[in-house]
Amino acid sequence: MAARAGRGPRGERGAQSDRILAAARKSFATRGYDGTSLRSVAQAADVDPTLVNYYFSNKMGLLQAALEPPDSFGGAIAAAVEAPLEKRGQAFVEAALRMWDDPATSEVLRSIILTASHEPIAMQRLRTVFSTLVSQVVSTNLPDDEAELRADLVSTQIVGLAMTRYVWAIGRIATIPSEQVAHLIAPTVQHYLTGPLDGAAAPTT
Amino acid sequence: MAARAGRGPRGERGAQSDRILAAARKSFATRGYDGTSLRSVAQAADVDPTLVNYYFSNKMGLLQAALEPPDSFGGAIAAAVEAPLEKRGQAFVEAALRMWDDPATSEVLRSIILTASHEPIAMQRLRTVFSTLVSQVVSTNLPDDEAELRADLVSTQIVGLAMTRYVWAIGRIATIPSEQVAHLIAPTVQHYLTGPLDGAAAPTT
Repeated sequence: MAARAGRGPRGERGAQSDRILAAARKSFATRGYDGTSLRSVAQAADVDPTLVNYYFSNKMGLLQAALEPPDSFGGAIAAAVEAPLEKRGQAFVEAALRMWDDPATSEVLRSIILTASHEPIAMQRLRTVFSTLVSQVVSTNLPDDEAELRADLVSTQIVGLAMTRYVWAIGRIATIPSEQVAHLIAPTVQHYLTGPLDGAAAPTT
Repeated sequence: MAARAGRGPRGERGAQSDRILAAARKSFATRGYDGTSLRSVAQAADVDPTLVNYYFSNKMGLLQAALEPPDSFGGAIAAAVEAPLEKRGQAFVEAALRMWDDPATSEVLRSIILTASHEPIAMQRLRTVFSTLVSQVVSTNLPDDEAELRADLVSTQIVGLAMTRYVWAIGRIATIPSEQVAHLIAPTVQHYLTGPLDGAAAPTT
């Protein structure tokens, strides 16, 4: 039986599968794959255990659905990609901050990161999703090697911002307003997108 | 009974407590605090279970010892701090890369990060250790607010580099030589240490 669930409300059926997914993400993130049972997820979601099987087939199907990034993730990246290349650093940082500042999407992103920290399948999924999305932000007029390196450099800054501000909540970077964060971080992302990579020159936007 | 263990070999006693700590880090990182037992750690370390109590008192003592950063961590930071301020970005990135490229220290760092992802006590410890160490790299001639913000900005880049290159192993940033990584990332860290933070200007080193 193939997994039948999508995301987003579609009446009672959508609401049930959303509740199951929310409970599953929490359980996978805190107890890992082995420590999660379909029964305990059903109980936390307040649904009959047979419904978990009905929507997601089995525990692996449930994990894979739980690791899907929120729809708004792809949409936010797509919007950033439409910014002209010389403004894309700012647009991408702002899109990332909006996703993390929205509790609905930040819960999912946090759970993907925490689950990946102890589940190799989740880690592989995170790598693929993240690389695919970030690579869209890079200019299409570049040799593959350079495009990949620039995407990876953007990732170092965006991942580090997400970890320190939202997951670890370190110091001032966790508390200053998003506008200020974007102001401080965007020039770095822009440099990785379009600045010289020889490292000898000072980064310029 | 206070914890008696230190790190580093001191004959059989040091070797035993090192084996216990290595097994404990692995268990805390993969199974969490609740999923770790002193008995299973003793078994993995091939020592008598009473020795775990003898060296570390109890499970909390074992966790706290497991979360101690390697001695070389503080030493590497101290060396970077001795570099003149205008070269400190490069020195700090190189020190961080050396620690992560050394299997002995990278295992400990990785385990601290993974344990922190599901243990609040470990997360608090990671925040404190990390903030304290990074704050040493910032110039001492700055108002507290600015010093903290600069340290946090450095953290966003260093944490993101460690996560993408060493923990998640994303794309090219995980495979290129450390010298090239330092070349690419050091200008950003230098900018966060000494560049203008108004965000309007392009980052300069």
